[in-house]
Amino acid sequence: MTSFRLGIAGLGTVAQGVLDIVRENGSVIASRTGVELTIQRVASRTARPDVDLCGATFSTELRDLIDDPQVDVVLELIGGETVARQFIGDALAAGKPVVTANKAVIAAYGNELLTQFPGVGLRFEAAVAGAIPIIQAIRSGLVANRFEHVVGIINGTCNYILTAMQEQGAAFEDALARAQELGYAEADPTFDVDGIDAAHKLAILLGLAFDVPFNFDDIAIEGIRGVTPEDIQYAEELGYRIKHLGIARQTTAGLEARVHPTLVPVQQLIASVNGVLNAVLVKTDAAGDTLFSGPGAGGAATASAVLSDVLATAEAGETPTWRSGEAELKVLPVAETYSAHYLRIPALDEPGVFAQVANALSRYGISIEAAIQKGLQDHASTPPVVAIVILTQVTREADIAAAVAELEDLPQVAGEIARIRVESLA
Amino acid sequence: MTSFRLGIAGLGTVAQGVLDIVRENGSVIASRTGVELTIQRVASRTARPDVDLCGATFSTELRDLIDDPQVDVVLELIGGETVARQFIGDALAAGKPVVTANKAVIAAYGNELLTQFPGVGLRFEAAVAGAIPIIQAIRSGLVANRFEHVVGIINGTCNYILTAMQEQGAAFEDALARAQELGYAEADPTFDVDGIDAAHKLAILLGLAFDVPFNFDDIAIEGIRGVTPEDIQYAEELGYRIKHLGIARQTTAGLEARVHPTLVPVQQLIASVNGVLNAVLVKTDAAGDTLFSGPGAGGAATASAVLSDVLATAEAGETPTWRSGEAELKVLPVAETYSAHYLRIPALDEPGVFAQVANALSRYGISIEAAIQKGLQDHASTPPVVAIVILTQVTREADIAAAVAELEDLPQVAGEIARIRVESLA
Repeated sequence: MTSFRLGIAGLGTVAQGVLDIVRENGSVIASRTGVELTIQRVASRTARPDVDLCGATFSTELRDLIDDPQVDVVLELIGGETVARQFIGDALAAGKPVVTANKAVIAAYGNELLTQFPGVGLRFEAAVAGAIPIIQAIRSGLVANRFEHVVGIINGTCNYILTAMQEQGAAFEDALARAQELGYAEADPTFDVDGIDAAHKLAILLGLAFDVPFNFDDIAIEGIRGVTPEDIQYAEELGYRIKHLGIARQTTAGLEARVHPTLVPVQQLIASVNGVLNAVLVKTDAAGDTLFSGPGAGGAATASAVLSDVLATAEAGETPTWRSGEAELKVLPVAETYSAHYLRIPALDEPGVFAQVANALSRYGISIEAAIQKGLQDHASTPPVVAIVILTQVTREADIAAAVAELEDLPQVAGEIARIRVESLA
Repeated sequence: MTSFRLGIAGLGTVAQGVLDIVRENGSVIASRTGVELTIQRVASRTARPDVDLCGATFSTELRDLIDDPQVDVVLELIGGETVARQFIGDALAAGKPVVTANKAVIAAYGNELLTQFPGVGLRFEAAVAGAIPIIQAIRSGLVANRFEHVVGIINGTCNYILTAMQEQGAAFEDALARAQELGYAEADPTFDVDGIDAAHKLAILLGLAFDVPFNFDDIAIEGIRGVTPEDIQYAEELGYRIKHLGIARQTTAGLEARVHPTLVPVQQLIASVNGVLNAVLVKTDAAGDTLFSGPGAGGAATASAVLSDVLATAEAGETPTWRSGEAELKVLPVAETYSAHYLRIPALDEPGVFAQVANALSRYGISIEAAIQKGLQDHASTPPVVAIVILTQVTREADIAAAVAELEDLPQVAGEIARIRVESLA
C-alpha cells in the first residue's frame, strides 16, 4: 500500500467534494489501486470550522501547501485566474505535481506551464466537462486516431436554458431566471451565457485533439442571448434542436474553433442531451463517432475527475508525454470557416419578397436547402410582417455575413435577421 | 523517442486494422506520445500476401512471437478460446506483456491469467464495446467512485436487429436476415442474438466496476429471439423502447448481473442509441450518470482500442493495480433479482378476464403500473383473442415467474405470455 498525501487549495464545493469522496470512498480506492489517499493540508483564505477536513492541517497561506514536504500533490481548486496561475507555477517550480479544475488558467497559460515544467506533472481532467473523462479519452483511449472533429455541449448553464426554452417554450430571460433560482447560473451569468466558459474548454479540447497549443484567443465566440423561442420552434419543425456547441474541426484549409448556438439534427444523439448535462462527440478516422456524456459541473462530479488525476499522478508522476503534432495546424479566422445556416428574416408580406431574398443569397453563391414562411409577427404593421425561415447549404462565413448585411438593407426586410449555424455532425 | 515493437497473432480484420493505423498514423502517434510503434512480427496459420505487414517478419507459428526477443508486446487477435487462452498464458509466462480483444477468454480465464502473472501486463480494452474506452473510464476516469450500476448496449448485432424492428416494423427473422446481408450478423448468429457475446462483456464490466472476479457463469442470459414487432409497438405506446441490455447492479442484497431485452424509457439517452452502435451507461455515487457510446465492433474501431492498450503498455508496462474490493460482493441468483415487467398476455375476449389476471398478479404481491388491451390477434378464434398488455411495478423475479406460470394455466389465457423486463435506469 502506497500512501499519497494531498494538499488542497480552496474550500469551495469542489474541494468539499474531494474531502467527501476521500472520507467515504478512501477504503475502496485503496483496495482497488493500492494507493491510500490522505488529506495532509488544506489552505483557504477563511477557515470553515463546519467542514470536516479529514484530519488535515489548515492554513490560510497557499504557500504552506507547497512548502510542506509531506504534501505529495497539490490540488488547485480556488478558481479565478491570477492567483491560481501564480500558485500552480510556484508549486510546479518547487517540484510539486499539480491537479487543477481551472479551465481559464489552462486555456490561457497551460502551454507555458507544461513547457516550463515538463517533468513535474500538471493534470486538468476536471477542467473540461466535469465528471466525463474526456481528456483521458482523447489523450489515451483514442490516442492512435487522427481527429476530424470534437464537438461538445460543454456549458451546462446554456444547455439548461436552451432545454427549458425547448420544453416549456420559455423566453431566454425566464429560463435564465429559473436557472439562477436553481443554482445552475450565477447572479452575473455573462461567463456562461455569452460562451466564455465554453470557449475556455474548447481551447483545451482543440489543443489536445489537434496537437496545437491551447489558445483561448483563437476561439470565435457567440453566446445564447439571441436565441428566441420562435427559433427553437422553427428549428424543431425543420427537424433540428438548438444546442450551444463548442466545435473544433480539422479541414483541409486548417482548424475551425468556434463556440455558438447550433441547429443539430434531432436524430443525432447529442441533440437529446438535455438539462445541465454535458456531452462531447468525437469523430476520428479509426474509432468513428464516439460520444461521452455526463454531469459537467457540481462538487462531487468535478471532484471525481480531480481524484482520477490525483491517482494518475500517484501512479505515473509526471504528465504523460503529449507533444505538438507533426506539422502545426493553424486555427482559421472565423470568416474563413464553413457552416450551413438558419436564417429568420422578418419581411413585409408583399409579393416578390422571397424572390429578392433568394436572389441576394444567390449573388453570394449561397444555395437554399429549405425555406418556410411563418405567420404574422406583428399584427399592427401595414403591410404585415412575416418570418421567412431559410436553411442554407454549407457556405463560407464571410459570404453569409455579407449576404445577411445586404438583406438587412432591403426595404422589404423589416428588422434584424437572426442567423444561427447548422451542423449535420456527419 | 522510444521504440516499441509489436508482435501480432492473427491476420483478421482487427489485426489488419492495427496494421493500417500503425502505417497511417504511426508518425502522429510518435509525435504525440514519444513512442515509435513498429510491427516486428506477424503470426497466422495462413500467409496473406495481399496484406501489407509494414515490414514485419511473418511466421505460421504463434510461438515465434513469444520467442522473438525483439517483440516488446504481443497482440492476441486470433479469437476463439482454447488456442488464444494458451497463447496468452504462454506469452505472460515468458514475461511478454499481452494486449487482447478476446472477451471470451477474459470473461472465463481473466482472473486466473491476471493472478498468475500479476506484473507482466495484460490489457483488454478492445474486449468490451470496441472503440469506446469504457474499461479505462471505469478503472481510471471513475476510479474514485462507488458504482451503482453499469448498463450497456454491448452487442451491436442485437441493437441493429431491434432498431430495424422498431423503425421498419420488421419481424425478427427478417431483420436478422438483413443484418446477415450487411455483415452485422454471422451465418450462425447464436452467439450474438442469444446473448452469449453480451454476457462475456458484462462479466468483464461487472468485475471491473464491483471489484469481483470475472465470472461468465454468474450472468443470467436471455437473447432477443422472443421479441416481436407487437412488443416493440406496444412498448412505444407506453413510452419505452426495447433494447438488449447487459445490466450489472449493486443492491443491498448483492449484485445483479443479467443480459436480456429490456424496456427503457424513451427519455433515457441510451434509448436513442440505434443501429450497430454500442453504449454503456454508468451510475456512480460522485460522478452521477455518465454515458459512453460508439462503434462496438469493426476492424478499425477495435484496433483503435487495441492500440490505446499498446501505448499504455509502452508507458507503464505492467497492468495497473486493480485488486478485489473491501468485502467481496456475491452475484445473486436470477430468481432473487428485482425488475419491473412488461407482460403481453393473449387472452380470450370475455368479461372478467382482466380481473382474473389482476387477481393472480395480486396474489404474488405484484402491482400493476399500467395496462392496455390491444385489438384482435386472431380473428378466427371464438371467442376472439386479445392482447392484455401490462406493466408491473418492480417485483422479485421468482414471484413474477411463478405468477406468469399460474396465469398461463388460466383457461382464459390463450397461449404463452411474453415477458420482458422494464428498467427505469433512474
